[in-house]
Amino acid sequence: MNLKDEILAVAQGARQAARRLAHASTETKNRALLSMAKGLRKSEKAILTENEKDVKGAKEKNLPKALVDRLLLNSSRIESMASGLEEVAALPDPVGETIKMWRRPNGLEIGKRRVPIGVIALIYEARPNVTADSSGLSLKAGNAIILRGGSEAIHSNLAIARVLSEEASRAGVPQAAIQLIKTTDREAVRELLKLNDFIDLIIPRGGESLIRTVVEESTIPVIKHYKGICHTYVDESADLDMAVKVSFNAKVQRPGVCNAMETLLVHQDIARDFLPTMIKKFQEAGVEMKGCQEVRKIVPEIKEATEEDWKTEYLDLVLSVKVVPSLKEAIEHIHKYGSSHSEAIITENYRAAKRFLDEVDAAAVYVNASTRFTDGGEFGLGAEIGISTEKIHARGPMGLEELCIYKYIIYGEGQVRQ
Amino acid sequence: MNLKDEILAVAQGARQAARRLAHASTETKNRALLSMAKGLRKSEKAILTENEKDVKGAKEKNLPKALVDRLLLNSSRIESMASGLEEVAALPDPVGETIKMWRRPNGLEIGKRRVPIGVIALIYEARPNVTADSSGLSLKAGNAIILRGGSEAIHSNLAIARVLSEEASRAGVPQAAIQLIKTTDREAVRELLKLNDFIDLIIPRGGESLIRTVVEESTIPVIKHYKGICHTYVDESADLDMAVKVSFNAKVQRPGVCNAMETLLVHQDIARDFLPTMIKKFQEAGVEMKGCQEVRKIVPEIKEATEEDWKTEYLDLVLSVKVVPSLKEAIEHIHKYGSSHSEAIITENYRAAKRFLDEVDAAAVYVNASTRFTDGGEFGLGAEIGISTEKIHARGPMGLEELCIYKYIIYGEGQVRQ
Repeated sequence: MNLKDEILAVAQGARQAARRLAHASTETKNRALLSMAKGLRKSEKAILTENEKDVKGAKEKNLPKALVDRLLLNSSRIESMASGLEEVAALPDPVGETIKMWRRPNGLEIGKRRVPIGVIALIYEARPNVTADSSGLSLKAGNAIILRGGSEAIHSNLAIARVLSEEASRAGVPQAAIQLIKTTDREAVRELLKLNDFIDLIIPRGGESLIRTVVEESTIPVIKHYKGICHTYVDESADLDMAVKVSFNAKVQRPGVCNAMETLLVHQDIARDFLPTMIKKFQEAGVEMKGCQEVRKIVPEIKEATEEDWKTEYLDLVLSVKVVPSLKEAIEHIHKYGSSHSEAIITENYRAAKRFLDEVDAAAVYVNASTRFTDGGEFGLGAEIGISTEKIHARGPMGLEELCIYKYIIYGEGQVRQ
Repeated sequence: MNLKDEILAVAQGARQAARRLAHASTETKNRALLSMAKGLRKSEKAILTENEKDVKGAKEKNLPKALVDRLLLNSSRIESMASGLEEVAALPDPVGETIKMWRRPNGLEIGKRRVPIGVIALIYEARPNVTADSSGLSLKAGNAIILRGGSEAIHSNLAIARVLSEEASRAGVPQAAIQLIKTTDREAVRELLKLNDFIDLIIPRGGESLIRTVVEESTIPVIKHYKGICHTYVDESADLDMAVKVSFNAKVQRPGVCNAMETLLVHQDIARDFLPTMIKKFQEAGVEMKGCQEVRKIVPEIKEATEEDWKTEYLDLVLSVKVVPSLKEAIEHIHKYGSSHSEAIITENYRAAKRFLDEVDAAAVYVNASTRFTDGGEFGLGAEIGISTEKIHARGPMGLEELCIYKYIIYGEGQVRQ
């Protein structure tokens, strides 16, 4: 079978599976999730053997150490995939809820019923745990998933996906509800992106260039975020101890992720009180800082920030710092340079808090809390398949409800239109 | 200014306007809508003069009569645009509602607040009333709109859009909240489709080829429907009088629209009782029919349907008719040939009704009612900017709520992530 036919067969299989899975009972889906968890535990040895091949390959190719680490599986990482599936089984089923229902003057009863999206294709890099986590969420929401992982993790992904789809099938879920693309040929992605009749949604997760390629080439809807350039704005009325604590957490607790702070904005009236302490704390944690002119007047040893720095997602212990004359200019800076991901204000002032919440256009807007909370688990959604900075369908962490859509159901008694 | 800069300036202006409009009060938006309505009535003469140019041009180009009719404005059509705007003013404001809000164990209060999408570009053909209707809906939902109408209606659209944006601006809404692209150069659309930083959503309305081009070229999310191949399935247990009445309405009441029926499916066990009466009624109304072999056994004078017919949106007094052996095969036919728009079953059987509602994957699924009800007004949404057959964001008629998205708002008291 050539590549084109192979991908087409996968997508057609997924569509068939999705039609059946859409009205599978919660019981069947949960049984499948629990079997999948058991299956992963039982196949630990086989999965680790396959994973070794990937790790060896990555080392031979001299891939960065961080990437090799993300690739690496061990007993505890497999256990955490398994228990993740069990947690998803314990979440409420989002499918079938009638979100609203009303009666029209002509007697028609019109309802919006939550239903699965259908077929989701996930295009991702490195971490093999994504294979299990996403399959679990997708299945619980009644969707078929097509997984296309990175070539570095292909052996691990194949081993994991095989266990998942076999166990799901044993529990009564169509085997094609979880499929991994076997070829690592890049052409496979291109083929996927054109199969509008069989795939309903593409979710790319990974580096910005991967995501841009997907957006450029896909004629299927894509939900994604390119990056997280998140700001914390310390208002003139901020509790400065809180501001230090929250800003520090937003930058340092885990700098390599999309909800970490990249730029600190400070109101000019408290800059002299706040910045020396804050900067000292960052320096002690090894954070490299780049500041505007005003920052450098207060702490001269800071490097100068360039225009480029305000647009940069460092994903590292690096931070841009800027003094702003007003809340208004803080918001303007956020809109000019931000990525509409997560934005925070630290303030004790009621009006400033309200205005920030009202005016800042981002997936998650915080008052007095760390941007690091933008996460499905932290929000109480149970888990997430990704984070969206789109302006349609879903924003922020995407959990089970965001993997669904609705259909209108209409109960009539012979009504015709006049 | 060259074309590229012109389109960019429009889009940038729209983004600025959208930021302000996002937190405009309901009062301001309603005042603008009422002024816009008044403005249209006051400018009737000027608009009709411009419209004459379009109609004259269309006649000179020998455009089809139906198209010329759609283009034509008169006093009562302008009045209906104006009263449409007043109706939108009377609808509840969708913006600002907290859809849900909950408290996390760490004390964070997390809410989903409904907010405008931002900047919407509408690409449409022919009817100048769309210019007013869409501007009104978009404004009420707090969005800026970029209108790109067809070249046949350019004079009418320019005249209408000028009135709308001037009146909106007088009422305190940014003038750039409603902008019409002045050039009819097709290149303008291509430019629009790449401005991801300034445009959040593209809604194309018109012929399938226009929509396909938009989907192919856009890197901005698109919500659309290509066509409506809607089915009515007459179950073995149907009330045959109701089946005749509802099927007739679905085909004949207004055949040129997307929610009209294109294929009638009939259970084999009632085909002999049902088809002769039904077909006679259609013949009396001038409906041309194409049937499968089984249909032709019962009513031999019917033409034979080809494979192509099942896939065709006639938009006319033409109907495909097929006998099916079971509900299951009716659903399979719908999924194979349908466009996921509107599908109906006529039945007295509880299980059949339930199964059809559960299994049919379409924007609107009906029991015992005409598919012609798929419409924002008929559903009670007040109005619609279009109908979606997407699987994300919105399905079916898109009203004010569907022109919105949500953002997370988070109230903290210094929480940091562990």
